[in-house]
Amino acid sequence: MTIEEVMVTGEWVRRGGTPAAPSKGRLRPLGLKEVTLRPGFWQQRQRISRENSLDHIEHWLTRAGWLGNFDQAAVRQGREFSDSEIYKYLEALAWANDPALEDRFQAIVARVSAAQDPDGYLNTNFGRPGQAPRYSDLEWGHELYCFGHLIQAGVARARAHGRDELVEVAIRAADHVCDVFGPGGIESVCGHAEIEPALAELYRVTGDRRYLDQARLFIERRGHQVLGDIEFGRSYFQDDVPIRDARVLRGHAVRATYLASGAVDVAVETGDEELLDAVAGQWAEAVARRTYLTGGMGSRHQDEAFGEDWMLSPDRSYSETCAGVGSIMLAWRLLLARGEARYADLIERTLFNVIAASPADDGRRFFYTNTLHQRVPGHEPPADQLVPRAASSLRAPWFAVSCCPTNLARTFAGLAGYLATADDDGLQLHQYTAASIDTGDIAVEVDTDYPADGRITVRVTRAPETPWTLTLRVPHWAGGATLDGEPVAPGYARVRRRFTAGESVTLDLAVRPRLTFPDPRIDGVRGCVAVERGPVVYCLESVDLGDVDFDTVHIDPSSPLTDRDGAVIVNGHAGATADGAWPYGGRPDGEGAAVEIPLHPYHRWARRGPSTMRVWVPATTD
Amino acid sequence: MTIEEVMVTGEWVRRGGTPAAPSKGRLRPLGLKEVTLRPGFWQQRQRISRENSLDHIEHWLTRAGWLGNFDQAAVRQGREFSDSEIYKYLEALAWANDPALEDRFQAIVARVSAAQDPDGYLNTNFGRPGQAPRYSDLEWGHELYCFGHLIQAGVARARAHGRDELVEVAIRAADHVCDVFGPGGIESVCGHAEIEPALAELYRVTGDRRYLDQARLFIERRGHQVLGDIEFGRSYFQDDVPIRDARVLRGHAVRATYLASGAVDVAVETGDEELLDAVAGQWAEAVARRTYLTGGMGSRHQDEAFGEDWMLSPDRSYSETCAGVGSIMLAWRLLLARGEARYADLIERTLFNVIAASPADDGRRFFYTNTLHQRVPGHEPPADQLVPRAASSLRAPWFAVSCCPTNLARTFAGLAGYLATADDDGLQLHQYTAASIDTGDIAVEVDTDYPADGRITVRVTRAPETPWTLTLRVPHWAGGATLDGEPVAPGYARVRRRFTAGESVTLDLAVRPRLTFPDPRIDGVRGCVAVERGPVVYCLESVDLGDVDFDTVHIDPSSPLTDRDGAVIVNGHAGATADGAWPYGGRPDGEGAAVEIPLHPYHRWARRGPSTMRVWVPATTD
Repeated sequence: MTIEEVMVTGEWVRRGGTPAAPSKGRLRPLGLKEVTLRPGFWQQRQRISRENSLDHIEHWLTRAGWLGNFDQAAVRQGREFSDSEIYKYLEALAWANDPALEDRFQAIVARVSAAQDPDGYLNTNFGRPGQAPRYSDLEWGHELYCFGHLIQAGVARARAHGRDELVEVAIRAADHVCDVFGPGGIESVCGHAEIEPALAELYRVTGDRRYLDQARLFIERRGHQVLGDIEFGRSYFQDDVPIRDARVLRGHAVRATYLASGAVDVAVETGDEELLDAVAGQWAEAVARRTYLTGGMGSRHQDEAFGEDWMLSPDRSYSETCAGVGSIMLAWRLLLARGEARYADLIERTLFNVIAASPADDGRRFFYTNTLHQRVPGHEPPADQLVPRAASSLRAPWFAVSCCPTNLARTFAGLAGYLATADDDGLQLHQYTAASIDTGDIAVEVDTDYPADGRITVRVTRAPETPWTLTLRVPHWAGGATLDGEPVAPGYARVRRRFTAGESVTLDLAVRPRLTFPDPRIDGVRGCVAVERGPVVYCLESVDLGDVDFDTVHIDPSSPLTDRDGAVIVNGHAGATADGAWPYGGRPDGEGAAVEIPLHPYHRWARRGPSTMRVWVPATTD
Repeated sequence: MTIEEVMVTGEWVRRGGTPAAPSKGRLRPLGLKEVTLRPGFWQQRQRISRENSLDHIEHWLTRAGWLGNFDQAAVRQGREFSDSEIYKYLEALAWANDPALEDRFQAIVARVSAAQDPDGYLNTNFGRPGQAPRYSDLEWGHELYCFGHLIQAGVARARAHGRDELVEVAIRAADHVCDVFGPGGIESVCGHAEIEPALAELYRVTGDRRYLDQARLFIERRGHQVLGDIEFGRSYFQDDVPIRDARVLRGHAVRATYLASGAVDVAVETGDEELLDAVAGQWAEAVARRTYLTGGMGSRHQDEAFGEDWMLSPDRSYSETCAGVGSIMLAWRLLLARGEARYADLIERTLFNVIAASPADDGRRFFYTNTLHQRVPGHEPPADQLVPRAASSLRAPWFAVSCCPTNLARTFAGLAGYLATADDDGLQLHQYTAASIDTGDIAVEVDTDYPADGRITVRVTRAPETPWTLTLRVPHWAGGATLDGEPVAPGYARVRRRFTAGESVTLDLAVRPRLTFPDPRIDGVRGCVAVERGPVVYCLESVDLGDVDFDTVHIDPSSPLTDRDGAVIVNGHAGATADGAWPYGGRPDGEGAAVEIPLHPYHRWARRGPSTMRVWVPATTD
């Protein structure tokens, strides 16, 4: 059965649905019932999200009044985009697809459905008595953005469960959007992209070409100054340059990655290679010049935006959690379309160093931003306190703009979907964690303690009689990797043969600590080094340094790196610098006292109380 | 005549007024009629401000409707603080004290006066039908801030001209503020400090102790969380910690420096050495750890705030022009109180590298922010276009938040007041530019081409019969300086003797290009050097580099620095780095091709069309 055939049937339901399901492309996604996470790094985080974060989210959606906004009597609370948090929560519940959550899911769907106008319009912030009229503020109103998340929730429900009330609500909403913004309608777009991938995905679910055409229309309109100018400039919402003409991702990082995701969806479905090339080129430029070592994106606090090329100062890194989600959405789509390992490389980096970094161990607090350098210890906000969005020091329970908890929840719920793909020739493994994969024809068990250890064993438990190819990604950092003892280069390592059940293939990745140097054009980290170990970025925290003056620590790059109790140890010096009245003058000298410097995984930072932290550590010049 | 005696008399009118006139302190300010700028660096800028900027400002105040807000029929336009721009413009006119401007001045005063309520309240944004009630938004409403600028304008008028209508308006406003916020009244403060120095200055003009007491009350109240919390935290408006307990300047940089200025005023007038020590300590910490090489302050765009210690990335430097004005206000008050050269050092640095950088040559465009690193060439906004505040690339004619044009205008109008002081023992010269100084007892001519040249000749043209001390500041950067051929150290060089008219003293400052290295804790400029020449910070602009890849230029710190046609030339390399797919990895190597690197004064940047620019240039490691 081809993808085209399953698209509009219940086939995806049988397979458990999947976060993005293109009808064409180099690789085919697997369903959430085809990939099962087993105990390990990611299963633990998915479990915490399922067991704790979902409750936590519903508690706050209720408490903040954002859920109550759907009930007509309520006085509206929250920001203009708060409806979207309910939809992202519904999307998370849909991917989780857990009978124990079904009543909760249906109860919210009923409230959402009841709030929908007869013509399909649905937004708690516009069009009611005393509110601004519908579509009176496309720049900031987020109406189409909210519709996008509603439709994505409907898509998730349709793929994971089948057509029901939420899917009907989503379709009515999509029809309304096409009526109002289609040919002859309002010739504009939404200030925050999201409707674009949502409509393309709804096309994939329903087969109704109208949604794809509308998504394409939104993609093509943007960039022609159809929105009003704003303080941050139109690049903020990517309305500065048509997407086919842009050089690089720019503006608000979540908007940019969502839009690019929708553009890939449209390009793939319409066979528009020019558009796909354009987005792939923008992605490559953004990764080469505008991305943090963690995979995080967004250097500017004021407009939550990509900075210019090389503007990657760690102490002002914004690296919004949701931009990490958007980056994964985009890279996943490019991976499915083109089958190139670099997309999976960035997904891995972002998963381990942004997505894993944001939630607290209990899944009830989150980083909104993911700074690479924390200069002052933070104060942990009380568990019952809503905090502003930009706090970077300690994880907070909820935010005035609280997009990351629900975005993480939907990502964790669908996480199994990003591990592997299939094509006509076999199975491809892109991310490594203990898992069982069963596509029907082929079943494998992946055994690994990754990323703590670099050995990945793939045991075939069912295989066709004919030869097929097992493809394993060798990450870009993994020089010296071997596959069944034979050297393999970064990229994709392939084993093509007839497999029999029970036999194994073993990939050994050189997971050991290494020093990483930055491109000399990244001004913010000149003269610094970072420590990485496999896909995991490490960091230095003040809680590990005792009385050592954190601001004066520097690493000796010729020092060996050693593993010790989960930390990486390296030698260096500290304490050479003292305050003067003016911090600029003659050439400084002295290197201070020798110190042993322990670094821990970045994703674990600020879990031991307030501390200062840095990913990039100054290096002794030699 | 002592300062106390002249304070409330017309003596200041005879002397032309002066921007801050403490009744006590180590040094006494001179009046604007006692110091006359002669042709040179600063007179040219003052003349452009007088001849072009004042017209430009009034044009825009009218066009934007901010002046019209004072007329009852008008529909209010502009931000909540727009009244203050009219007051700062009036202050500039008052210091200019030019009969040719008198009609214009009186016409605006009449409109302002007519808008004042009988009880002294005056704000075009509150309290009228359809507007929010008075003092209903102390955090953001800026009512007391606007009163502060109104009172400062009144103080300027009283000192430079004598008591008239504007002074009466200011006094009525001040009385109203004391009535409403005095003991038993509203126990709070304004989200933006400014009323504090204004009331203290009005006390100095009128001798009415009530204003000083009210200023003190505002100073003491703040820091006890009397304002509501906001997204940026209460440190934004310095309501986090009482001023006596704070370690360093923090939060919004303009608010911080205005508040500290008011605190110095109160401390000096009340003899509160503890308060003066506290502010002096906070200033010293801010200068040692939170100030750019240019003297600019404020590292954060989002809240226009000081960053944390060492957070001084050049590519995100905000360095608001108005924070430069506030920094000069503060350092000048500390200088008068304590007589220490370091305060004059920072004023000099800020004047040459912030105040001189902001206005265009024609005085009709301005930088709102003064970045130290511009990564992409800007687009010059049309001459008739109001732009958002944060543009850093090219000077703009007017801003939605347009505080800098009027702040510069009042600073230029009062500039002569910052050059010199007197004490019972003689005359002190703090800033060098060609000028005539005549305090009655003592008259001198200062001849110099500073900062192009380091020779300053002070010719005494009138002197008392008795010995007195001529004091000349030797800037902190000026190692190797000589006074009449004898070596003098940075700080104050003093010549005490009986002078006869016609004799001269010559100070030779070593104004030649030098390399400056940063404190190793300033992460954003690690591995970089800057070029300075005398008090002037230099920068590298892409327009001077032809085809050389700007992002890869680095300086060889062992290369000699040479002057050539107003530029400083240094040798270096460029072009070593090429793009990879991922900008982090192994140690980079190669230094590229040899290039000759010309740097120009930072204050002249972006005057030759769009360019990229950097103050800190990477250095070859050796």
